[in-house]
Order: sequence, then structure tokens, then C-alpha cells
Amino acid sequence: MDIEQIKRLRELTGVGITDAKKALEESKGDFDKALAAMRKKGLTKAEKRGEREARAGVIGTYNHDSRIGVIVEVNCETDFVARNEIFTGLVKDLSMHIAASAPLYVSEDEIPASEKKKIKGEFSEKAKAEGKPADMLDKIVEGQVKKYFAEKCLLEQPFVKNPDIKVDEYIKEHIAKLGENIIVRRFERLALGEVL
Amino acid sequence: MDIEQIKRLRELTGVGITDAKKALEESKGDFDKALAAMRKKGLTKAEKRGEREARAGVIGTYNHDSRIGVIVEVNCETDFVARNEIFTGLVKDLSMHIAASAPLYVSEDEIPASEKKKIKGEFSEKAKAEGKPADMLDKIVEGQVKKYFAEKCLLEQPFVKNPDIKVDEYIKEHIAKLGENIIVRRFERLALGEVL
Repeated sequence: MDIEQIKRLRELTGVGITDAKKALEESKGDFDKALAAMRKKGLTKAEKRGEREARAGVIGTYNHDSRIGVIVEVNCETDFVARNEIFTGLVKDLSMHIAASAPLYVSEDEIPASEKKKIKGEFSEKAKAEGKPADMLDKIVEGQVKKYFAEKCLLEQPFVKNPDIKVDEYIKEHIAKLGENIIVRRFERLALGEVL
Repeated sequence: MDIEQIKRLRELTGVGITDAKKALEESKGDFDKALAAMRKKGLTKAEKRGEREARAGVIGTYNHDSRIGVIVEVNCETDFVARNEIFTGLVKDLSMHIAASAPLYVSEDEIPASEKKKIKGEFSEKAKAEGKPADMLDKIVEGQVKKYFAEKCLLEQPFVKNPDIKVDEYIKEHIAKLGENIIVRRFERLALGEVL
């Protein structure tokens, strides 16, 4: 079990470390499955108690030409920072970035194990078909998979307004400026007429 | 197999009737599973061919107080209608409605069979525990399940700006006005700090 997975699961769901561990055990390390299971539990709890977990931050939306829509939830630690224009500016930049760069995940931890396996299999077959030397195969495929998923993860993408840095670094600059932790919790992106 | 399910699956994915039927057969009538399977196929196809299915309409977004964000895709038949302000007004109304009423599905067809079964089981146990007469049980539970899901489906909800009519009827009024079919294809709604 990956400590980063546990950490991220807790950030996303607000559950304790024991529950996060248990969920990951039950899903055999499949982050996506664990998250879905927790969400199911979380939703039921929220419905029953009529509660919402308290969490500071901002929901940002961005609409590009009525053809692409983005929602992003960015969390910080206090309402004070949530209202700060450096923070709201970051949220706006992130929503525009997501519209332009179309990531599929926030970070690699969110990629389902089944998806990783599938993609690895595809690259592996391709490399074999291309006659890559057997002793190099694992290393080649590993590099290809890493690159493929990095392109699909928001935090790993080059930031559209400054491609010299990754989105992750851009957020870290704001953490330094504002003195609070900042987490992109989740986002949604819909494009007109796209085939899903 | 439900003809409405086939119809809706085709609307959502743009596939032919044979493919839609096949997907529903393979998923044993589980609409959600069939849709997921088609999406998988659709995505692969789109990635390979670099294609996007042509579809007129508008992506609407709505942001309530930086606390609730909504994206909705509403399709019509022509770009001409997509630019009409009666149509864009409808999209705006729908996005505000979704923010306020928090539906989970567009229509009942989207509810996974597993979820239906689960909810039915819960109402059934509750009715038994309450000592409802055995010969009335099925009818009582059926009514409760129907009501429960109607509250969670956008098209069945009372329209927030005029609760005398359902959202479905409000859309039909616009179909009559504009002379084109109008379909709410999908939506996303995120609220700040909600437990998922």
C-alpha cells in the first residue's frame, strides 16, 4: 500500500487514516475503486445527517465560447485565503488551463489500476511488435507509460500560461505566497459534441 | 430490452441501433454499464481518428457564489438554433436549476440497475419492518422507489422557476417554440466541500 495513496484518499474524502487504509485494502490497491467505495459511504452519511463537510476554498467555472465548460474545486485552509484575489486568480488560471489542456486526472494516484494495466499492455505489445530487445523492454515500456500518464494528469502538465513550469510548481508558488496548503480536489470538463 | 434505453443510448453516444442493442445485451440491460462500455469504445475511436462527432448545441456553465459549479451540455439540431437567444436562455435556466435542485441523473434511464436494486431493497425492508400487509408490499415499494428516483432525475424535477411544471415540460415548450429537438445530454455539478 502506497502512503501517497492513503494521503490523497484522505484529502479527497476527509476520512480518517484507518478508513482510508481499509478502503485501499479492500480494493487491492485500486485507488479509483477505493475512492468510489468511500464516496458511496460518504454520500449515504451526508444524506442521513444532512451534513456537509466544512472545507475552505473556491469552486471555479470557465466557459470557452459555449463549447467547453470546466468546473474545478480548489481547497485552502481558511475562508480568508479563499477570498484573497491571488487565490481566486489561481483558480481562474487552473480552470482555463483545464479547458485548454484537457487533463483526465488531477494526479497519477487517481488513475485506476485497471487503466494502468491496460495501457502498459498496449505499449508492451507495441514494443514487442517493433522488435525492441527483450532486456530493454521493461525499461522502454515503463518510460512510455510514465510519459503517457504525465500528459493526462493536471499536476504534471506544462502550465499553459508558462510552459516552462508544471501546474504543480505553479500551485506551489501560490502555497509559498499565501502560506496555506492548496489542493486541487477535483474537476470536470465537458466539450460540446465530444465522443465519450 | 427497453426501446427507450436503446433510443437514449444512441442519443448519448451517436452509435447505430445495432451497436446500442449489442451493448445493452452484453450488459444484461444495465444502462450505465452499456454506456460505460460504449464510451470506452467511443473514446478509443476518437483518439485514433482524431475525430469529434459533429453535434449542434451549447455548453452552459453556472457558478453560484463560488460555492456551486454546474456544466450542462444541451444539444439541438442546428447551429442556427444553438445561437438563438431562446435556446441559450433555456441552457442558462437549466444550469441554474441544476445548481439549485442538485439532480443526480438526466433521466431514469441513466440510473444503474444495481442502484435501483439497492434502493428497492432498502424500501422493501423498511416496509416489511413497518408491518405493511404482504399483498400490498410490492405496490407500496414500487411507488416509493418511483418517487425517490423522480426526485433525483433532472427531467422529472419541478422546474425551480415554475414548480407547476416539470423540467421535461419546460424543455418541450422550447422544442415547440424552436421547432427542433432539444436534448439535455449530460451535466456535472460540484459543490464546495461536499462529501462525495
